Amino acid sequence: MLIYVTGGARSGKSRFAEERARQLGGDAVTYLATAQPLDAEMQARIERHRADRPPRWITVEEPLELERAVQAAPTPVVLLDCLSLWVSNLLLRGDSEAQMLKAAGDLLATQRRRGGTLIAVSNEVGLGIVPDNALARQYRDALGRVNQAAAAAADEAYLLVSGLEVKLK
Amino acid sequence: MLIYVTGGARSGKSRFAEERARQLGGDAVTYLATAQPLDAEMQARIERHRADRPPRWITVEEPLELERAVQAAPTPVVLLDCLSLWVSNLLLRGDSEAQMLKAAGDLLATQRRRGGTLIAVSNEVGLGIVPDNALARQYRDALGRVNQAAAAAADEAYLLVSGLEVKLK
Amino acid sequence: MLIYVTGGARSGKSRFAEERARQLGGDAVTYLATAQPLDAEMQARIERHRADRPPRWITVEEPLELERAVQAAPTPVVLLDCLSLWVSNLLLRGDSEAQMLKAAGDLLATQRRRGGTLIAVSNEVGLGIVPDNALARQYRDALGRVNQAAAAAADEAYLLVSGLEVKLK
Repeated sequence: MLIYVTGGARSGKSRFAEERARQLGGDAVTYLATAQPLDAEMQARIERHRADRPPRWITVEEPLELERAVQAAPTPVVLLDCLSLWVSNLLLRGDSEAQMLKAAGDLLATQRRRGGTLIAVSNEVGLGIVPDNALARQYRDALGRVNQAAAAAADEAYLLVSGLEVKLK
Repeated sequence: MLIYVTGGARSGKSRFAEERARQLGGDAVTYLATAQPLDAEMQARIERHRADRPPRWITVEEPLELERAVQAAPTPVVLLDCLSLWVSNLLLRGDSEAQMLKAAGDLLATQRRRGGTLIAVSNEVGLGIVPDNALARQYRDALGRVNQAAAAAADEAYLLVSGLEVKLK
Repeated sequence: MLIYVTGGARSGKSRFAEERARQLGGDAVTYLATAQPLDAEMQARIERHRADRPPRWITVEEPLELERAVQAAPTPVVLLDCLSLWVSNLLLRGDSEAQMLKAAGDLLATQRRRGGTLIAVSNEVGLGIVPDNALARQYRDALGRVNQAAAAAADEAYLLVSGLEVKLK
C-alpha cells in the first residue's frame, strides 16, 4: 500500500504521516530520512523531528538510493520523509528530470512488489510566484512531476493545511 | 458553461483541463493559448504542452484580446490556458488592476452570451512568502482578483494538487 | 466558538470571514486589526479593506497584544484579521517561536473563557519555494505552527481558494 502525504512547510504533514505510521506499524516502523545535515539550521531541524518520533523506530538515512533503501527496509511499514528533499538531492548531483521520473517510477514499482506500506511525504512548492532563479524553477517542475507520479500510484492521498487534512483520494 | 481549473505549477491542471475538454468536445476543441515564446525556456514549455494535445485541436494564440478570441472561437468547446499568463501580459503592457477586472468581466459575459463551454485554467501564486518585488506583489493581487471573478462565475471549479483534483464547486 | 479562515494572498479569506461575522453578529462586530500602516502601500491596503466593511462595526487596531484586545472586545463577535501580520509584528520585535506559541495559546484560552465567537483569519505562506532569506524561513516556520495551533482549537476551519471555500473541519 502507498499513502501519499503532501502540504506546505510546517503544515503538519510529517506529524500526520507519523501518526499513520504508528497506527499501522506501532513500534515497528522504518523511518527513511532523505535529509542531509549540511548546515547547522538543517541539523537543528533534523534533531527536532527525531525527538518527536517513537524511540524504537529504526532510522535509515539515505539521501539518494531510495529504491534500494525501501527494498532493504527491515519492517513492513516504511515512512519516507521526504520526496521533496530527495528530488533536491538528485538535482544537486546533476540528475535530469527524466532520470528523476525514472527513479521515482522504479521506487514505486519496487514498493508494489515488496508489499507492506510506504507512507511518502512530500512538499508542495509550486503555489508561490515564479522564482527568479532557474534552478528553483527546474526544482519545482521536477518535484511537481515526481509528486504527480507518487499521488497517481497512491491508494490514499492527503493535503495538509494548518495541520488539518484534505483527503485527495 | 464555465469550468474553472486552478492549481500550482506542475500540479496537473493543464492535463486535467485537457481531459475535460476531450470529454466535452472530442476532437472539436479550440485551444486558446496566452503564452508568448519570449525566450528559449518558454518556447520549450510551449512545445512540450503542444505535443501532449490531440493533433486535430485548433490552436489559437492570443496573449491579450481573449474576449474577442472566445467570441470568434470556431468550436463550442474552448480551452483557455491560462488566465495567469494573460494577467501577466496585461500587466506588462501597463494595464491597471481595474482594467484587468473589467476585461475579465467582459470575457465572462461574452462567454455566457456565446454558450458552449469555456474551460479556463489559472495558477495559484499567493501561497508563498510575500514577494520582495513590487511588480510581483501587484501581479499576485491582480491575478487573485481575476481568479476570484472567474471562480465566482464558474459552474464547476477545481483545485489540482499533485495531479489530483479537489472540487471547489 | 472559534472559526479559523486561511488561504493565500487575495484568496477571498477576509471577505469570507466578514460575511461569517455579519451573519453571526450583524452590526455588532469588533474588527480587530493587526496591520500597521508602515508605508503608503500598506496604508492603501488598509483603507481599501476598511471601505468594504459595514460602517457600524467597531475597529480596534492592535498589532501585538491580541489576548488583551480579545478580552476587552465590546461585542461577542470578534473578527481578527490577521494572525499572519501578528506573527510578523511579534517577529520584528524579537519574539522567539516559543514565545509566539505561548502567546497564541494564551489568546486561544482567553477566547474559550470569554465565550462569544472569534473568527481568526490567517495566511498560508509555506507553499512556495524555500525562501533564500533566513528571516522569511523563520517567519513561515513560526506562522505555520501558530496556524496549526489555531486550526487545532477551531470549531470550524476553512481554506479559501480563488474565493471559494474548502471546509477543513
